[in-house]
Amino acid sequence: MRDKFFNPESIVVVGATPKGGKVGNTLLKNIISFQGKAKASVRISAVNPKYEKILDAKCYPSVLQIEEGVNLAVIAVPAISVPEVLEQCGERGIKNVVVISAGFKEAGREGAVLESELVRISDKYDLSVVGPNCLGIINTHAGLNATFGKATPPKGNIAFLSQSGAFALAVIDWSKAANVGFSKVVSLGNKAVLDECDFIEYLATDDETAVITLYLEDIREGRRFMDVVRHVTKTKPVVVMKSGRTEAGAKAASSHTGSIAGSSEAFSTAFQQAGVVEVNSIEDLFDFSLTLSRIRDVNGGIAIVTNSGGPGVMAADAIEEYGLELAPFDRETMEKLRDLHVANFYNPVDVMGDADAEKFKNALGVVSADENVGAIIAILSPTAPIEFDKAGDYVLELNDKKPIIPVFMGGETVMQPLERFKKHGITNYFDPVRAVKALCAVDKYRESREKVSAPPPYSKVDRKAIEKLIELRERKEAKMGIGVDGFKVLEAYGIPAPSYGKAETAEEALEIADRIGYPVSMKIVSPDIVHKTDVGCVNLNVRREEVKETFFKIMHRAEKYTSARRIEGILVQQMIEGGKEVIVGMKRDVHFGPLIMFGLGGIYVEVFKDVSFRIAPLSKEDAIEMIKSVKAYRILRGVRGEPMSDINSLVDVLLRFSQISMDFPEILEADLNPIKVFGHGKGCYAIDFKMIMGERK
Amino acid sequence: MRDKFFNPESIVVVGATPKGGKVGNTLLKNIISFQGKAKASVRISAVNPKYEKILDAKCYPSVLQIEEGVNLAVIAVPAISVPEVLEQCGERGIKNVVVISAGFKEAGREGAVLESELVRISDKYDLSVVGPNCLGIINTHAGLNATFGKATPPKGNIAFLSQSGAFALAVIDWSKAANVGFSKVVSLGNKAVLDECDFIEYLATDDETAVITLYLEDIREGRRFMDVVRHVTKTKPVVVMKSGRTEAGAKAASSHTGSIAGSSEAFSTAFQQAGVVEVNSIEDLFDFSLTLSRIRDVNGGIAIVTNSGGPGVMAADAIEEYGLELAPFDRETMEKLRDLHVANFYNPVDVMGDADAEKFKNALGVVSADENVGAIIAILSPTAPIEFDKAGDYVLELNDKKPIIPVFMGGETVMQPLERFKKHGITNYFDPVRAVKALCAVDKYRESREKVSAPPPYSKVDRKAIEKLIELRERKEAKMGIGVDGFKVLEAYGIPAPSYGKAETAEEALEIADRIGYPVSMKIVSPDIVHKTDVGCVNLNVRREEVKETFFKIMHRAEKYTSARRIEGILVQQMIEGGKEVIVGMKRDVHFGPLIMFGLGGIYVEVFKDVSFRIAPLSKEDAIEMIKSVKAYRILRGVRGEPMSDINSLVDVLLRFSQISMDFPEILEADLNPIKVFGHGKGCYAIDFKMIMGERK
Repeated sequence: MRDKFFNPESIVVVGATPKGGKVGNTLLKNIISFQGKAKASVRISAVNPKYEKILDAKCYPSVLQIEEGVNLAVIAVPAISVPEVLEQCGERGIKNVVVISAGFKEAGREGAVLESELVRISDKYDLSVVGPNCLGIINTHAGLNATFGKATPPKGNIAFLSQSGAFALAVIDWSKAANVGFSKVVSLGNKAVLDECDFIEYLATDDETAVITLYLEDIREGRRFMDVVRHVTKTKPVVVMKSGRTEAGAKAASSHTGSIAGSSEAFSTAFQQAGVVEVNSIEDLFDFSLTLSRIRDVNGGIAIVTNSGGPGVMAADAIEEYGLELAPFDRETMEKLRDLHVANFYNPVDVMGDADAEKFKNALGVVSADENVGAIIAILSPTAPIEFDKAGDYVLELNDKKPIIPVFMGGETVMQPLERFKKHGITNYFDPVRAVKALCAVDKYRESREKVSAPPPYSKVDRKAIEKLIELRERKEAKMGIGVDGFKVLEAYGIPAPSYGKAETAEEALEIADRIGYPVSMKIVSPDIVHKTDVGCVNLNVRREEVKETFFKIMHRAEKYTSARRIEGILVQQMIEGGKEVIVGMKRDVHFGPLIMFGLGGIYVEVFKDVSFRIAPLSKEDAIEMIKSVKAYRILRGVRGEPMSDINSLVDVLLRFSQISMDFPEILEADLNPIKVFGHGKGCYAIDFKMIMGERK
Repeated sequence: MRDKFFNPESIVVVGATPKGGKVGNTLLKNIISFQGKAKASVRISAVNPKYEKILDAKCYPSVLQIEEGVNLAVIAVPAISVPEVLEQCGERGIKNVVVISAGFKEAGREGAVLESELVRISDKYDLSVVGPNCLGIINTHAGLNATFGKATPPKGNIAFLSQSGAFALAVIDWSKAANVGFSKVVSLGNKAVLDECDFIEYLATDDETAVITLYLEDIREGRRFMDVVRHVTKTKPVVVMKSGRTEAGAKAASSHTGSIAGSSEAFSTAFQQAGVVEVNSIEDLFDFSLTLSRIRDVNGGIAIVTNSGGPGVMAADAIEEYGLELAPFDRETMEKLRDLHVANFYNPVDVMGDADAEKFKNALGVVSADENVGAIIAILSPTAPIEFDKAGDYVLELNDKKPIIPVFMGGETVMQPLERFKKHGITNYFDPVRAVKALCAVDKYRESREKVSAPPPYSKVDRKAIEKLIELRERKEAKMGIGVDGFKVLEAYGIPAPSYGKAETAEEALEIADRIGYPVSMKIVSPDIVHKTDVGCVNLNVRREEVKETFFKIMHRAEKYTSARRIEGILVQQMIEGGKEVIVGMKRDVHFGPLIMFGLGGIYVEVFKDVSFRIAPLSKEDAIEMIKSVKAYRILRGVRGEPMSDINSLVDVLLRFSQISMDFPEILEADLNPIKVFGHGKGCYAIDFKMIMGERK
């Protein structure tokens, strides 16, 4: 992404027209008028073979005729003509292009062909193209409004990227009334060339942008998104609303954008791992962005200073409900508060209804000096003695010491301070609960930044062994699961499993069982028999004297269900008794790749959906978090005096399993179910393993 | 509550003053000026011995001198003088009184004495008194503003009761800007005489009130609240924000109001059972109230009509996330939509960015004619072709057919239709998610109305037996639990338990065991030995030949821990093996009485907090709901081919347990833990029973 994209010295509008109401007219008008307001010295020209001048801009038959260099072309010609214009831009050396025109991928097959043509030309000339089918771009700090909307948003430090042009339009229109200021606005359109990742990368280094705020309907390259965003969020918050999270939403979205729905777990997990602050409503999208644009850190608990008990209690409730903490005060603070004659000298501080602005200020001052306090929620009801103008000034004054979120509760009465707050980028809330939610977003962002995502530890693995197995399978064209060979996969990657062997004769079965030790389990191995237990082809707790008899019994039963040719033998396996059951699974998400799941077996997964997700590759910290973040972790930790389970062995299994999923993209799904885990130091065993293979890549 | 309370023909302000800025001045001003605006003909007088006239109102030395009848006295004299004034009101026959003055219970011991004096006088003369320590009352429809705030709220059909005067002040100030209209506003103050129940009862029959909206910090009479509200919510929604829900909030609240915190489960359960729509934020409080004030019912699914895909998908996501349903369209609707040339002919309907207001109207018309549609969310982004004024008119026009929630997304651009919506009591949302949340509140209200709360079925019980046991216990002064006698309690109320007997000799033990059948369990009975298993005083699975030996062994061990005098004998009990474990518990809440809990034993309660609550007495429907609403209910229903557990027997136990808790207020806590339940028709057994007794009442 070139800097001239957002800061062009020369712009051309291709498809400009003097006819009012047309997109090509509004575009040019917006560019000229906002440029004027910003007093920028940008050359603006137009392209339309029918005119020599449009709205003061010199007009050319095509971009090829423009004498000077042009940094940015904004194209609003019919879709069919776009490739030709793009070709001319390439020839003319115009590297940055906004394609407003619709009628591409979103419009059906012919449009899709046009769009791939657009991509081809962009590649050929190395063009930076946003769109097609978009509203355009805005850079408030450079006086650039290359959109065809009616409004221009206020200046600010939030960069807003929207995959919906209509939503961008709505936000821009609303932003003035809501006083949400933007640094840049980008309508991403069809994301044929540039997508969210390109802009996020650029905005990460943009000094005018403090927060990157996105509305997304899909993500083009999931892995790249994670890599880019994980890096960016270390220094700049990224707030995302992704629609199509639910089944109903995804169905609506697919008919709208034609995008492939990945699983919502995968999106949320990817966002979390990349440090994104994810939101589910427009209100949160901008509340959180605004707060993060001025508060990056809350180092300590939250203090509440209020002139009315009720709203103070509301805030205290919300603080607990959203998982934040009320700051405890140190002794000095309490003594000072006592001297101020407030209702109490702990948190929330109630300066009482008869307090004036001075008393309010004094309490704020005392509280903000306390080291335990990370941020303050300052609540004022419109009592007679309080002078809001003064109180507002005090908030602005003390805000540098500790971030203050004002909750000035009123209408007319609080207008003046609210206007002043806005000028300083401070949002006032009527509802203390909204103030708390916004602080919660800051906390979430802090947590995500603290996460270290180390590369997964290397494990000595036998990759070749698995490759061989997979090749073998492919020749046999058996794509569903790999049965007994599954244990070879586990062995190759060092995942502990019960000792086993495949016997083709009763003698072999006895030999294997002797080697393993008694009792053993015996199971049929045949691709045709899936529900082995139901048809009597599984025997558990087999003793030495029963091995041969059991072999024949199982074989006999199996022959009722399949031909002898399709029976591979009998799996003789060590019996693992006791232990607690956990499940590790993997599904390959269409956007983000292997989504690893962890949970406790049986009811916990099935009924309580008590599972955790991470996208591979996992770091050791990821694996530990996955285990600890399920509610049933308490069962592993041991209840009623039981010993702690061997968590380290589970971490190791997760890491090795993650590595398999990374090394073999042809594995679409895999499950270790159950894994039996024993007390600390006693390890775990994967009792069963299933996988589903896709095309070899 | 007398009707003249809110509709007085004659008002006196006691403590009126001509000094600007004083409460007694603002009060009188507000009363006079709002009266003037409302063009009402109400006589207004003042009481202050120093003046003969204040602000056009005739002034008397005391209420005793006023010649005409007075319906309402508003008192703003110092607390110490309030009892005298009240006494005079009583003498003078002024039945309705608003006590604005502070300095009562909230101000410490002396104030509390004054407050009980106030209550005594009110009782003596049968006065209706609101306050003390309150902001006053408003009736917008009668031109009554008896508050000392600066503003008067717009007229509307929401009655707002607030336990915080400051919060009422804030809401009134804000209401004009937010265009939230009120029928009545009441600042409840200390609730010394009239409390929320009195006003709710009155407002239930008030034609000008469609929704009753409350901010509460405590509830004075929990049982009465439930009785009153349960009745009112059948016809009128009651929306409540109760602060002090969390530990942090309750701590803050207790220092603020001095109220005793009940458990937050009890409050939420009581609200739910009474049909209250409970909210946790100010935003929801008024969003939900406003929506319920015009939409009482959504008979069918939700339809979305939008001119932009993105926001349509957001709404669809929210509909699923908040548990509502997208309406399926019938064939006719789909055909008509197809003819309209919209992007799709299912829900959400995307009329597309090039749609004008006519097309939008046509789509709305088609959708609102579909019987599957209960309500419509109408989303418009500010695209060039859409004329918002017209679109707004169409929404108003079609809103009579099916309730429409407009989501006109913009700032300036949408101002005109928004103003018109407001006049019709319709709220527009910029965020489709907020629109969905508001509809969700309507759905919640509908559900609560449909609940039938029948009285609990009568059970033949032996109340006397328990009374005798309790008396016995009291003489022994043993208040913690009632050990083996607990089984007698269960027996008396027909709760099934294992057969048992208490043996004092080895011979007796054998006799009892022979009667019960083998194997049996044997446990020491002694108030001194609590952890019986830990000290070897419990033996399970005892066979006939082991009974005597076990008797002596347990006795021998017990004697190490207590004197023979304190050993009551040995409990011989039927062994109940297998079955699934559930828990039924009761805690007596300080406000609402017996709070009954149900959950599945062990980990489900401890780790997942997967429990349900109801306040006794339970109806059969309550009991069934309690069982079905825990997540682990699936375990009772049977997983992996297991039979269904005997739910009927659990329902019966819940009802009988509820009855015990109602019949014996001296039982503070009780637990049936575990209850073992078997397959359908095979019943359940309470294996253990504990209770904690309080003072006899």
